[in-house]
Amino acid sequence: MPSPTRTPIEVNGRSYQWMRQPVVVVCVDGCEPDYITQAIEAGVAPFLARMCERGASTLADCVVPSFTNPNNLSIVTGAPPSVHGICGNFFWDPDTGQEVMMNDAKYLRAGTILAAFSNAGAKVAVVTAKDKLRAMLGHGMRGICFSSEKADKATLADNGIEDVLALVGKPVPSVYSADLSEFVFAAGVALMKRDRPDLMYLSTTDYVQHKHAPGTAEANAFYAMMNGYLEELDRLGAVVAITADHGMSAKTDAGGAPQIIYLQEWFDARLGAGRARVILPITDPYVVHHGALGSYATCYLPADADIADVTAGLVAVPGIEAVYTRAQAARRFELPPDRLGDIVVIAEKLNVLGTTASRHDLSALEVPLRSHGGISEQKVPLIFNRPLHNVPSGRRLRNFDIVDLALNHCA
Amino acid sequence: MPSPTRTPIEVNGRSYQWMRQPVVVVCVDGCEPDYITQAIEAGVAPFLARMCERGASTLADCVVPSFTNPNNLSIVTGAPPSVHGICGNFFWDPDTGQEVMMNDAKYLRAGTILAAFSNAGAKVAVVTAKDKLRAMLGHGMRGICFSSEKADKATLADNGIEDVLALVGKPVPSVYSADLSEFVFAAGVALMKRDRPDLMYLSTTDYVQHKHAPGTAEANAFYAMMNGYLEELDRLGAVVAITADHGMSAKTDAGGAPQIIYLQEWFDARLGAGRARVILPITDPYVVHHGALGSYATCYLPADADIADVTAGLVAVPGIEAVYTRAQAARRFELPPDRLGDIVVIAEKLNVLGTTASRHDLSALEVPLRSHGGISEQKVPLIFNRPLHNVPSGRRLRNFDIVDLALNHCA
Repeated sequence: MPSPTRTPIEVNGRSYQWMRQPVVVVCVDGCEPDYITQAIEAGVAPFLARMCERGASTLADCVVPSFTNPNNLSIVTGAPPSVHGICGNFFWDPDTGQEVMMNDAKYLRAGTILAAFSNAGAKVAVVTAKDKLRAMLGHGMRGICFSSEKADKATLADNGIEDVLALVGKPVPSVYSADLSEFVFAAGVALMKRDRPDLMYLSTTDYVQHKHAPGTAEANAFYAMMNGYLEELDRLGAVVAITADHGMSAKTDAGGAPQIIYLQEWFDARLGAGRARVILPITDPYVVHHGALGSYATCYLPADADIADVTAGLVAVPGIEAVYTRAQAARRFELPPDRLGDIVVIAEKLNVLGTTASRHDLSALEVPLRSHGGISEQKVPLIFNRPLHNVPSGRRLRNFDIVDLALNHCA
Repeated sequence: MPSPTRTPIEVNGRSYQWMRQPVVVVCVDGCEPDYITQAIEAGVAPFLARMCERGASTLADCVVPSFTNPNNLSIVTGAPPSVHGICGNFFWDPDTGQEVMMNDAKYLRAGTILAAFSNAGAKVAVVTAKDKLRAMLGHGMRGICFSSEKADKATLADNGIEDVLALVGKPVPSVYSADLSEFVFAAGVALMKRDRPDLMYLSTTDYVQHKHAPGTAEANAFYAMMNGYLEELDRLGAVVAITADHGMSAKTDAGGAPQIIYLQEWFDARLGAGRARVILPITDPYVVHHGALGSYATCYLPADADIADVTAGLVAVPGIEAVYTRAQAARRFELPPDRLGDIVVIAEKLNVLGTTASRHDLSALEVPLRSHGGISEQKVPLIFNRPLHNVPSGRRLRNFDIVDLALNHCA
């Protein structure tokens, strides 16, 4: 264990004290706060209940767009997307004129807290469910960094670890399963026992949350599983800090029909076919559970479009919550303006935004659509197994304050 | 059955065709759409699933404040509160200088569709769970109008019916129970069999919804119960139309602690003790399930208060979604300005507004707080057991369009 009297680490303008015991930061993908509330109510998450009672529990605002990549990167950099540059899972790269995944570390504009501590001598480990996040989370970092999805492919050279399956004692899980997240927790516990990392980041996937509402048997089973592993990390002496990348809402009518506004169709009818370009930054290679349908879109408009006129037309569409210009969205949500379209569109809680009906495969949705991306999924849990100290009342807490709180404000 | 070729009935500027078969309009109190979605997913509401598939299902906007009285009165008058005058369960009467329940028909400024049809010769019946709504719903109406709560007290003179318990075959239920709503449905079926009313209005209570999240066993049991009675009404040949007075949201952090902003304390600190008056229009005599905590408040300010300054201060409080002046709120939500304070305050989805900590008995909350009142609970189901015709696409549907849709647009 490094001495806590060492010089604090500075990352992206914030200062982090050295840890006095192992610190485990957990990002539970799609964890609408009610998932935990209902699991506690059902009696299946007694350790989570104890964390809230004896440690600390509050709500925090995640980054909007309330998607996975922007929020995971905010958590590990301690900064908003205006600083780290990752404002979607997917964006339109104006340099190449192509729509691309924002998975590559070349898009990252800031260093991570994980990298900074590891380079200063701390033992750091990262386990993420899907491999898409691994490269960015591990950027510049020494130590262990691998995904459940490719756990069998991990090598000492690339991931700082090998024989992960033997360590965890589980097979590689399906990418569409609750097991993919369980593997993250099981690996976290195994690593804590074997290596006792100073700082560990565990990031799950929201496969369960996209399918099952808070309080249902399937959701409760997921949180019961999580409860057990987190309790073990607590017993091993770690500070355990939990947050989420975003919440999760039903996106259907009462009968389960998805409430979709097809923005490309709207623009094609108003401005001419193909003249506007609608980007859905929720898009990723794993769309079976959400059909690339979320509540946030950014749109590039033709040079002759009247933005005020387009905005007025869009806000009148039932289900649209708000429309912002690039500058407004960049300011309000702390986003990098050069990676936004001319406008940003946010849907209401029960609505999602699509491009055209033909470009979304709804047949892949096995259950009524639940998704995220909007302001309606901005509130996420912030829970610690120890009390917090010296947090000014009235401070607007963000999910990306979690490392600051765990290192600088936790007993 | 009256002839459907009779002259349509005009009420509050809208025209209603005569029914060709019995029409049953159901207001399911606190029915966030996901309650029905999850009950269908769980397989316990097959008739509701069939209604959505073969009839019609969409979402509609309820009235904000998303409370019981304003919305029930909007449904039966087909008009917003600016027309009928009921903008809360509770208000400050400037004529008397007192805070009073808005239960008395003397506060009603518009006639109801129920009264108009009954006075034109239609057989009309109303059953409501709590007695607080009965006087207003039955105002000016001939026919049957009683509550589950006081079913044993119903008389021919006052309620148009006697011996209700014998008709329904159930005892008077507890006011804090799911049975109070089941009694409404059971009475509706019994009345349909015995009297075959032309127009029936059934209005339940949200005791279950305040306690249990969509998809939980208790919530699913409620919707399974409702599914059975509605199927029976369908089998008896009625048009069945379902909506809600408002949705329902968790109002806690992940640990289940209520997220309360005490507005009177805020005003007392800013303007001096007792100088502003905070009115919580959710207040009613039955506060055990919500502690008089909802997401909407209206506030009377002292004459020397700077409204712009107060507004700027309030919107900066974490958990406040929006603050409107009286005129803005009256326009945006179609409310009667003379029954609003100087400002209207709306809380975010997971927050509620209180007066002072000492005036809310949180010990009465047996489970994590779930409540309503804000914009976050504005979306409600609108479901029919027959297809709808000639509804213009792009029409913003309201829950109080339900009688128009059932009589003028239903097959």
